[in-house]
Amino acid sequence: MPGAPTVTETIEMAQSRHFCIEQQQLVFSNGEARTYERLVSKGYGAVLVVPILDAEHFLLIREWASGTERYELGFPKGKIDAGETPEQAALREAMEEVGYGAKQLTCLHVPLTLAPAYMTHRIHVVLAQELYVAQAEGDEPEPLEVIAWRWDELDALMMRDDFTEARSIAALWLAKRYLSQGQVNDAG
Amino acid sequence: MPGAPTVTETIEMAQSRHFCIEQQQLVFSNGEARTYERLVSKGYGAVLVVPILDAEHFLLIREWASGTERYELGFPKGKIDAGETPEQAALREAMEEVGYGAKQLTCLHVPLTLAPAYMTHRIHVVLAQELYVAQAEGDEPEPLEVIAWRWDELDALMMRDDFTEARSIAALWLAKRYLSQGQVNDAG
Repeated sequence: MPGAPTVTETIEMAQSRHFCIEQQQLVFSNGEARTYERLVSKGYGAVLVVPILDAEHFLLIREWASGTERYELGFPKGKIDAGETPEQAALREAMEEVGYGAKQLTCLHVPLTLAPAYMTHRIHVVLAQELYVAQAEGDEPEPLEVIAWRWDELDALMMRDDFTEARSIAALWLAKRYLSQGQVNDAG
Repeated sequence: MPGAPTVTETIEMAQSRHFCIEQQQLVFSNGEARTYERLVSKGYGAVLVVPILDAEHFLLIREWASGTERYELGFPKGKIDAGETPEQAALREAMEEVGYGAKQLTCLHVPLTLAPAYMTHRIHVVLAQELYVAQAEGDEPEPLEVIAWRWDELDALMMRDDFTEARSIAALWLAKRYLSQGQVNDAG
């Protein structure tokens, strides 16, 4: 592996309420110079929750997505508030978005990145088990549709046009692998 | 499912070489109004290539990631050029980044999204099979390290701190599911 490049300059190019664009001047260990742009995440990171309803079902939400301008299926997600652990943020998001608390919260894998080449964003994947009914008020503009999906209908889920988010697909596999540990080797 | 919200105003907040930040005013079908920001992708979309070296190995690259400021393992990726199909872009990227062409190129799944809530970005996942040695000149600042990873060492890959990209993890599962179709039901 080569030595890491040296960042010789970082300039803030633009700042909005949610985004910050930086430009970096880099010199690689072989002397090659490049100018790269990157998006710098604000705040304390984010969590994605995989809620396990029972032995046969996990929970998904259907929510308006302004990026793709349509309703998308995926797992509950949200920002970590100041002072929260990923598990605490996951518990809060689960109560706000699917109406369940969880007695067991487990971080799977290291935090996922979206596009590490040009985004600093990371998201913790938290498995939520032993659910109990508990609704908390969120800031959603409309009630989220919550869907109990069967593990034995994964093929149908993967063929849908509205289940596209790489983080949700990756999290589903991580959860499936974790839950089948001890039952089958390399069950994923 | 509720009716889609109405976008009443879209303002460009910032523009850089690679990014465009938009602000949208939305009114949901229940009358709730919100102001959202989103990142608008430039160009013609992107491809991620899963190169299958032989029955036991797939190929990964190790590349500097300016977002996370470290070297990351993942699949070759790149933008689709004007006039290219996703398969043509995948072939070019495979030759530039791992030094192989492919006789068989298969789009898996619908294009993945990164964060559909606030990014318009989409990426086609292309499985590359029947590889042949063919190097093309890319624009990488330094030679990429290419790693042949064994399918039966997935557990070790998933435990690494530098294999974090949700798109690569999702693509790996999609490839695994596709390749095992017909062998095992719901092999993913």
